[in-house]
Amino acid sequence: MSVSTNAPRTSRGTLRSTKPLDQLAEIKDLFDERRVGYSLDAPFYTDPTVFSMDMQGIFQKHWLFAASVAEVPEPGDYVTIEYGPTSLLVMRNDDGGVNVLHNVCRHRGARVLTAPSGSTGNLVCGYHSWTYSPEGDLIHASAPGETDFDKSCFGLKKAHSRIYAGLIFVCVADEPPTDFDETAKIFEPYLAPHDLSRTKIAYQQNIVEEGNWKLVMENNRECYHCDGHPELACSLFPTWGLTEETVPPHLEDVWQRNKESEAALEARCRRYGLPYEVVEELDTRIAGIRISREPLDGEGESFSPDGHRLSKKLLGELRDFRLGRCSMHLQPNSWFHFLGDHVITFGVFPINEHQTLVRTTWLVADDAVEGDDYDLEKLTHTWKQTNIQDKAFVELCQQGAASPAYEPGPYMKSEYQVEAFINWYVQRMQEHLA
Amino acid sequence: MSVSTNAPRTSRGTLRSTKPLDQLAEIKDLFDERRVGYSLDAPFYTDPTVFSMDMQGIFQKHWLFAASVAEVPEPGDYVTIEYGPTSLLVMRNDDGGVNVLHNVCRHRGARVLTAPSGSTGNLVCGYHSWTYSPEGDLIHASAPGETDFDKSCFGLKKAHSRIYAGLIFVCVADEPPTDFDETAKIFEPYLAPHDLSRTKIAYQQNIVEEGNWKLVMENNRECYHCDGHPELACSLFPTWGLTEETVPPHLEDVWQRNKESEAALEARCRRYGLPYEVVEELDTRIAGIRISREPLDGEGESFSPDGHRLSKKLLGELRDFRLGRCSMHLQPNSWFHFLGDHVITFGVFPINEHQTLVRTTWLVADDAVEGDDYDLEKLTHTWKQTNIQDKAFVELCQQGAASPAYEPGPYMKSEYQVEAFINWYVQRMQEHLA
Amino acid sequence: MSVSTNAPRTSRGTLRSTKPLDQLAEIKDLFDERRVGYSLDAPFYTDPTVFSMDMQGIFQKHWLFAASVAEVPEPGDYVTIEYGPTSLLVMRNDDGGVNVLHNVCRHRGARVLTAPSGSTGNLVCGYHSWTYSPEGDLIHASAPGETDFDKSCFGLKKAHSRIYAGLIFVCVADEPPTDFDETAKIFEPYLAPHDLSRTKIAYQQNIVEEGNWKLVMENNRECYHCDGHPELACSLFPTWGLTEETVPPHLEDVWQRNKESEAALEARCRRYGLPYEVVEELDTRIAGIRISREPLDGEGESFSPDGHRLSKKLLGELRDFRLGRCSMHLQPNSWFHFLGDHVITFGVFPINEHQTLVRTTWLVADDAVEGDDYDLEKLTHTWKQTNIQDKAFVELCQQGAASPAYEPGPYMKSEYQVEAFINWYVQRMQEHLA
Repeated sequence: MSVSTNAPRTSRGTLRSTKPLDQLAEIKDLFDERRVGYSLDAPFYTDPTVFSMDMQGIFQKHWLFAASVAEVPEPGDYVTIEYGPTSLLVMRNDDGGVNVLHNVCRHRGARVLTAPSGSTGNLVCGYHSWTYSPEGDLIHASAPGETDFDKSCFGLKKAHSRIYAGLIFVCVADEPPTDFDETAKIFEPYLAPHDLSRTKIAYQQNIVEEGNWKLVMENNRECYHCDGHPELACSLFPTWGLTEETVPPHLEDVWQRNKESEAALEARCRRYGLPYEVVEELDTRIAGIRISREPLDGEGESFSPDGHRLSKKLLGELRDFRLGRCSMHLQPNSWFHFLGDHVITFGVFPINEHQTLVRTTWLVADDAVEGDDYDLEKLTHTWKQTNIQDKAFVELCQQGAASPAYEPGPYMKSEYQVEAFINWYVQRMQEHLA
Repeated sequence: MSVSTNAPRTSRGTLRSTKPLDQLAEIKDLFDERRVGYSLDAPFYTDPTVFSMDMQGIFQKHWLFAASVAEVPEPGDYVTIEYGPTSLLVMRNDDGGVNVLHNVCRHRGARVLTAPSGSTGNLVCGYHSWTYSPEGDLIHASAPGETDFDKSCFGLKKAHSRIYAGLIFVCVADEPPTDFDETAKIFEPYLAPHDLSRTKIAYQQNIVEEGNWKLVMENNRECYHCDGHPELACSLFPTWGLTEETVPPHLEDVWQRNKESEAALEARCRRYGLPYEVVEELDTRIAGIRISREPLDGEGESFSPDGHRLSKKLLGELRDFRLGRCSMHLQPNSWFHFLGDHVITFGVFPINEHQTLVRTTWLVADDAVEGDDYDLEKLTHTWKQTNIQDKAFVELCQQGAASPAYEPGPYMKSEYQVEAFINWYVQRMQEHLA
Repeated sequence: MSVSTNAPRTSRGTLRSTKPLDQLAEIKDLFDERRVGYSLDAPFYTDPTVFSMDMQGIFQKHWLFAASVAEVPEPGDYVTIEYGPTSLLVMRNDDGGVNVLHNVCRHRGARVLTAPSGSTGNLVCGYHSWTYSPEGDLIHASAPGETDFDKSCFGLKKAHSRIYAGLIFVCVADEPPTDFDETAKIFEPYLAPHDLSRTKIAYQQNIVEEGNWKLVMENNRECYHCDGHPELACSLFPTWGLTEETVPPHLEDVWQRNKESEAALEARCRRYGLPYEVVEELDTRIAGIRISREPLDGEGESFSPDGHRLSKKLLGELRDFRLGRCSMHLQPNSWFHFLGDHVITFGVFPINEHQTLVRTTWLVADDAVEGDDYDLEKLTHTWKQTNIQDKAFVELCQQGAASPAYEPGPYMKSEYQVEAFINWYVQRMQEHLA
């Protein structure tokens, strides 16, 4: 017999089956046989068919973070988001909402708009000038001599959208998951006071990580690797994952400083009417979420070496810079840091089974002046460095997952959120495949 | 059930089946279920198996345009053409014909010649010096100590060739389609007077378009998109696709100018004994063809901004520069513009399902002197620009076809030739698969 | 019916089947139907599934050449070798042996070490600092708060190693082939006198050839193409493959010179107690081998234009520079030239079905001083040129094998060693698939 069919599951990077129904059965088996508490089998990170199923079961079914309102401040402003073979136009409309349109002309299938972002009135396809309203209705198809052509049949395909706390979410499913409004009710009180509608983009970075999107998300769900982030470490208390019982003697000081900072931050939040409690529902919701407000080390204001603010303008109606970081993880494809002086959004857009675009956007108060109120290099330094370090970590894992020697490894206790993300993924996919 | 198997046909970019017989059945179904008047389903543009079938059913069965005699003027001159995994040597022989040889050494499979074009006597493989005559016979295999080796069994594999009106066509099928001679009888009277045997290459451009070969051919079969060709538009009357009944008021002037130019051109052709009638048999022949002679705007001589000639030397036995353009579309892989002062040939060579080489060659009278008789930049400007614009159009459609939101769109009346090309393709493939 | 399923075997570059068991059957058929004395069918060179089976049947089962001891002279020195998706760390230990460890962290699958070579004590994974001893035991996994974690279960996976005559071999199979020690007994007496433990790396070259690994090995097994190696030809007698009966008149002189050189070399070897006989067991052993000592033309000392030594320091206990070349071919992935003044090792590491890394290392006596005792450019010139020429040959064959016109071609008598390599490959794979 072939080694290919005899080999243990753990030593394969691709599915054995190539016929769709066989593959489906094999993927279901892999889910059923999964060892809880361990990373996934190799095909989940390296197989193109699994990637295709991920796109169908996760990205075409769930609410995705697309952008913040600061990226499309005026009616007609749009951004393009792309994942797998999908291209969506996310366009601000006159009502303050957004229209989400599939960026595929209904005539010959051309991309309608080709810039990553811009501003437009009607949408005119560059190929034959088919012209769509901002709502996607076909209003002009200038074919000479055409008489019996029903334009109403050929509007751009639409998707759903929501804006919560200035964050724009899209869903291409016919029937989007219904729990998203509830999830939004959780995070809005935390984020709304930072008022993204009065922010502007200071900088946006697009990096392609040579790794599966799940490795990108997993990497973000633990700080066990944070020794690999020296710049970020200045802002974090190095007691992440410890408890009163397990804190080692050499970290007693830090532990105390952290506890005092937490107490001070909690008091401050109470004074300003800001929510403080940790909400952690990573694998108990369709829209898995974790949100928390945590102190920053040093002066506690921002992601700078000494904790001092990086922009001089407070966001929204906030009255204090010392609000630590309000951090949110929102499945399947985003995380965020909301601070007193700036906000950072992270969007994860899978390209294929081994490449993922990570888009990071730094937002500051819309009246902050570069050079006067903030230094762009300093504002972005910590997370630019952190991103590039994370990219390297993800890529090392992607290479390893393809190896015949790879087998799922154990998640440590301090990685329980990674495990929760994986649990969520398995639940979502098993429901999809059921 | 998997979304993969439930998804509607229109939202898939690849076949569901991966087993050859299943794929064959699925492709047949896709052909059978095709909606007439609409572009093809996504897999026809994006699936590697369909591409492989295209190569077998179209490119390995039909007559292909390879080059013009101006590219191989002397015995021993050769050009290499490549499509899919095939490499062919097209070599001028002493009899004025061409030999077409598979560029694969019969010893160890090496490419025999590696230059895109050149001149040679015998063909000597660079690996072990196996030496073939220009007819492909193995005449020397210098293995030391070899005694019982029958060289006659190891000639280069041969393909068929024809030269008509100075255009070289090749066919690798054992039994080439028999209607090609009839097709040639159609176009020869139009093209022969331009006498390619007395032309030379002014310039050759090779561009790789990131799109399926059928999108390249479709794009060439309509001028509905010609607003996207500002340089070419100077030469074309902007009434393409209109009829007396449908011409809009603002184009009345142009319509009249066009009609007058047509009448004048027809009269001129009659005077010189040049055929003028449109022949259009795009989907009624194995070698689908359209040929016509059409006036150019302005002075009507060439593809220049004002219609003035771009080379001072008339081609062949022509006696007038004002002959408009004699344009031919010849399926599966070529189109041509024959003018009084120059000729442009276009060859389409598929690389894979999403990449296509387009080779454009500008020919002028062999006694025309660059700098004196023609300015190379001016000669090539219009179609260099047009090609790069077409490349962008094709690529937008290729991206769109891969999207889950893609579905076949309607061809407009002015795109009836695109539809004819698609009809031809479907007929040819259904016959192949039958 | 589809041409795809009707096409003769010889005109296909990929398997027809895509379902694993069908593919297995098809590959078995291809082996069974193989025409002896001819090159392999196209899929063996171009199909990714066959490549995957090659990795399983050959590279994961057999002993592979990894490096020489000169590349890891001190305890803690390591080199990384990679083939297909496998990454191995080959690390010198305190006992003079080497540890071979799969370079895949048992925690989250990250590559543990990322440099191609280096020196280390314990192995610390860059992601979460899991720390392994040089033997691969997990000695530190610093997860905060972890209590019930059994480190002994998560050591790096290990592979087998042997060092013979200063050459390091690795095998990742659970049960390595047992005949390797016997094979080593064959080659050790030839190679040991050159004493690699007292050499150093003068230069290492890594080139990626765009061809299947078997084409790389085949190319090395014949000198029929040596006219394509003008630099190397200075060192070789151009009578390779001839016999007394078949030598042509114009080579009589060379034949005599060669015979005299052989006799002189044999006498010299006898004087120094060096083995001289040719051993040729390319297809009669699991570890197929050919080893011989052959004179070099000119002064007979080294791979220089006039045969003069390229390094002034004799290797090991050798007492004469005029020892020709002791050349060894060792299947599946290496060949070697041992000379009086330097040694060249060649390691072949497949990347995928159409790309192969060839690593060439020039070794000189460890007390030889660059600039004084050897000129690096001159030392490496002949084989740098030869490698680049061979790369071109291999790539021409890879292109050809993909062509529909390719069919297996006959091996000439002077290519009997290529045929032996192919026989070996077929035997090894048939046994694997049985």
